[in-house]
Amino acid sequence: MVDYNKIISDYSPDENERKKLENISSEVTDKINLICRNENIDASPVEVGSVSKKTNLKCSDIDIFIIFDRKYSKDFIERKGLEIGHKILKNGVEKYAEHPYVSGTIENVKVDIVPAFKIKSGERIVSTVDRTPLHTAYVNDNTDKNKIRDILLLKIFMKTVHVYGSEVSRSGFSGYLCELLIINYGTFDNVIKKFANLKGKLIVPEDQSLEKKFDEPVIIIDPVDPTRNAGAAVSIENLSRMEIASKLLISGIDVFNSENSKINKINRGTIMRVFVLNKPDIIDDIIYPQAVRLKNKIWEIMDKNGFMPLSWEIDIENDIEVLIEHERNVIPTVSVHRGPPAESNESIKFINVWKNNKRLLRGPYILGDRLYVDIKNKYTEFEDVFNNKIKNIDIGKNLNEFKDNIKIVNVNENTSMNVVNKFYSKSLFND
Amino acid sequence: MVDYNKIISDYSPDENERKKLENISSEVTDKINLICRNENIDASPVEVGSVSKKTNLKCSDIDIFIIFDRKYSKDFIERKGLEIGHKILKNGVEKYAEHPYVSGTIENVKVDIVPAFKIKSGERIVSTVDRTPLHTAYVNDNTDKNKIRDILLLKIFMKTVHVYGSEVSRSGFSGYLCELLIINYGTFDNVIKKFANLKGKLIVPEDQSLEKKFDEPVIIIDPVDPTRNAGAAVSIENLSRMEIASKLLISGIDVFNSENSKINKINRGTIMRVFVLNKPDIIDDIIYPQAVRLKNKIWEIMDKNGFMPLSWEIDIENDIEVLIEHERNVIPTVSVHRGPPAESNESIKFINVWKNNKRLLRGPYILGDRLYVDIKNKYTEFEDVFNNKIKNIDIGKNLNEFKDNIKIVNVNENTSMNVVNKFYSKSLFND
Repeated sequence: MVDYNKIISDYSPDENERKKLENISSEVTDKINLICRNENIDASPVEVGSVSKKTNLKCSDIDIFIIFDRKYSKDFIERKGLEIGHKILKNGVEKYAEHPYVSGTIENVKVDIVPAFKIKSGERIVSTVDRTPLHTAYVNDNTDKNKIRDILLLKIFMKTVHVYGSEVSRSGFSGYLCELLIINYGTFDNVIKKFANLKGKLIVPEDQSLEKKFDEPVIIIDPVDPTRNAGAAVSIENLSRMEIASKLLISGIDVFNSENSKINKINRGTIMRVFVLNKPDIIDDIIYPQAVRLKNKIWEIMDKNGFMPLSWEIDIENDIEVLIEHERNVIPTVSVHRGPPAESNESIKFINVWKNNKRLLRGPYILGDRLYVDIKNKYTEFEDVFNNKIKNIDIGKNLNEFKDNIKIVNVNENTSMNVVNKFYSKSLFND
Repeated sequence: MVDYNKIISDYSPDENERKKLENISSEVTDKINLICRNENIDASPVEVGSVSKKTNLKCSDIDIFIIFDRKYSKDFIERKGLEIGHKILKNGVEKYAEHPYVSGTIENVKVDIVPAFKIKSGERIVSTVDRTPLHTAYVNDNTDKNKIRDILLLKIFMKTVHVYGSEVSRSGFSGYLCELLIINYGTFDNVIKKFANLKGKLIVPEDQSLEKKFDEPVIIIDPVDPTRNAGAAVSIENLSRMEIASKLLISGIDVFNSENSKINKINRGTIMRVFVLNKPDIIDDIIYPQAVRLKNKIWEIMDKNGFMPLSWEIDIENDIEVLIEHERNVIPTVSVHRGPPAESNESIKFINVWKNNKRLLRGPYILGDRLYVDIKNKYTEFEDVFNNKIKNIDIGKNLNEFKDNIKIVNVNENTSMNVVNKFYSKSLFND
C-alpha cells in the first residue's frame, strides 16, 4: 500500500515554512492597508492562492491582491497597483498578465502584488484576475481538514505524473481544478476512481447536457461563474495521462514513486532536425502556441512534399527548439501527377499543357478513368524545399521576424539539446 | 482532313487476298460437307468471323465452325470435331477454348475448325462458341456496304490506339463490338462523336436502366442474347483511351498516323525491380490475370511495409515480367505503433506488453487520447521483407509452383527487357 501520510508530509511545508509564510502575508497586507488608509483609497488587500487556502505544497508563492472599488478606472488601479507593489517589494519587477502587476521576493519567498476589481459572485468581471478572490472564498467555504489533505495528495499525484500546471506549454490541471475535483468527489480515492473508469469527457458536475455546450475534453464548471468551463485549458493528453495514472494506481503500482524515464539514444534510422529560433522577450504562454504553430507549418511542408514527418518535440526553455523526426531527406526525381478524367472537358487541355513541358518525364498516360503524367520535381532535397516554402508562411506574430534566422541542427548521437533529451526520454508521464 | 478511303485501302485485303480466302473457305466447307454426308452425321459447316462478314482487315484468319445437332453429346462433337479438323488441316494442332479445336494453315492462311452445337437465337447455349454463328448471321443481316466500310474504319482506328482485341492482356474491343457499335450508331463519325462526348458508362442501346444491371464500364447488349453484356471484357482504361482518341480526332489531330512513343530512359530517382518467373505452357488469357495477381501481391507487400510502390508494368511475351517502381529500398529502424485509447480497458495491458519488450525503442507514451510505442522493425531492407512475406502468399494456381524461383532484377540504365521498354514508352495509346 502507498503511504499517503508520508507522501503528504514529504511534499508539504513544515511548521517553520508555514509560520514564515503567515508572517510575510500579514506584513504585506498590513502595509497595503496602511497605504490605502493614508491615501484615502477605497481598496483592501486579500490573500489569494494556495497559501490562503492552506492547499500549498512546499516552496509556494504568496499572492496578495489589492481589491479596488468598481468606481475607479482600469488605468487608475493599474497605476496605483504598481505604485503600491513597488513600495512594498523593494526588488519587485513589473510583469504582465491581463493587468500589470509587481513580482518580487521577501525573505526568499516570491510575492506577487496584483490589482483587481471588487466583484460579487455572478457579476461581470473586467479582467480574469477579478475572479480569483471569489475562487479563494469558494474553496475556503467548501473545504475542511480532510478535504485539504486530499487536495494536497491530488496535487502531488498530478505533479508526479506531470499533468499539474496551467501554463500553456503544460496545459495541465491548475490548483483550483484540484480543489474543485476534491470538493465535488469528496476524496482523493474517489477522484482517482473517477479518472480510472472515465469514458469520454470528464464532466463536473456530472450533467451530460454540458457535453455539447463545451468542446473541450475536460469540462469543470466554475462554481463562481457557471457559464465558464474552468477545465478548458486541460489538454486531451493530460486527461489521458490522468486516466492511465489512475488505472495504474488502482492496479497497485506506486505511481507516486515511479522512476524517471531514461534518455535512450538508440539509432532510429530516421532524420532528426531541430529548428532553432531565438526566443523573444515575451512570456512563455504567448511564445509556446507560436512554437506549436511553427512546428505545424514545418510538419505540413514535410508532409505535403514527401519528406515523411514521423514525430516531434518542442522545448522553449532557452531558445525555441522545434524537433521534427522525418523519414526521408531526398524525395524521388519523379512525381506521379494525376490529371482529369478522360471523359472531362479538360482532358485535351491537360494533354496539350504537359506533352511538351520540360518537366515531363513520361506520359501523358491513362490509368483507370484518368490521365496522368510523370513529372520532374523542382527540388528533391529537404532543405531546398524548406527554404523555398518557409518564405511565404506566417509562423506567428512574434516569430515571423526571426524567420530568416531559423538555424537547422541535424541531430546526431553527440547533439546535446533540451529538446533532443526530451524527445528520447518521452514516456507516459512526461511530455 | 484525314483521308478515310486511303486508310481503308491501306489496311484492307486486296482482290487477290479476298479471292484466296474465298477459295480456302469453299474448299474447307466442301470437305466438311462431304465427310458429314459420308459418315451420316447431322452437322454442317458455317463460316464465321470477320471474313464471313466481309469486315476483315489484311492477313485475317478463317474460322469454320462445324455445327452439330443438339441430339449429340458434348463428348461426341468434341471428338468428331477434332477428327474432322485433323483430316482437313494436315499441319493442324489441337487448341483449347471451351471446346478443343484444330488450328492449322492452308496456303499460309491460318484456319481454325471448331465444333459447336446448333442453337437458335434466345436458346440456351452449351458453350460460348455456340453463339458465334448467331453473331455472324446478325451482323450479315444488319450491315450494308457503307456500314462494312465504317466497321473497317473503326477497327483500324481502334488498332491504331491499341484498344482493339479481346485477349485478356489487352481487354479491348472485339471485332464483334466494332460491328455492333456501327450497326447501332450508323456511321464511324457517329461512333467517334459518341465516345468524344460520353459521360459515365457506354451503354448500347442507350437505356439508362441497364446501368445498374451491369457493373462494367462498357455495356453493349448482345442482340442475340439480351441478358448478356457483350462489352463486359472492355477495361475502363480502354474506354478512356477511346474517349481521348475520339476527342483528339474531332479536334483535328490525325490520330490514325500518330507517332509511336519513344523509349525515354530518364533517371527517375526511384528503385525499379522486375520480378521474373518462367512462363508455364498455358494460354496467355489464363497466365495474364495471375501475373496481375502477382503484381498486386508484391505491391501490397511494398505498400504495407513502407517501401512505397509508385507504378508498375507487366509483360508476358517471353517470361512473366512484373516491373514495380518504388520509392524506398530501406525503411527506418523505427515504427510508430498505435495502441488503444487511454480510457480503454486494454490500455494497461498494452503498457505491460510493451514496457519490457526488446523491440521497444521509446515509450509507451501518450498522444491525443491514445497510447503509442516506438518499436524496432524486424527487417528494414526490401528483399528481406519480400522473402519473408512471399512464402505465405497465394500468387495464383499456375504460378505458385514457381514462387521459390522468382528472380528479382534491379533495373539500371543498361537493363534491356520487354517490360522495361514498355514502362519507359508508356503513353496515351499503349499500355
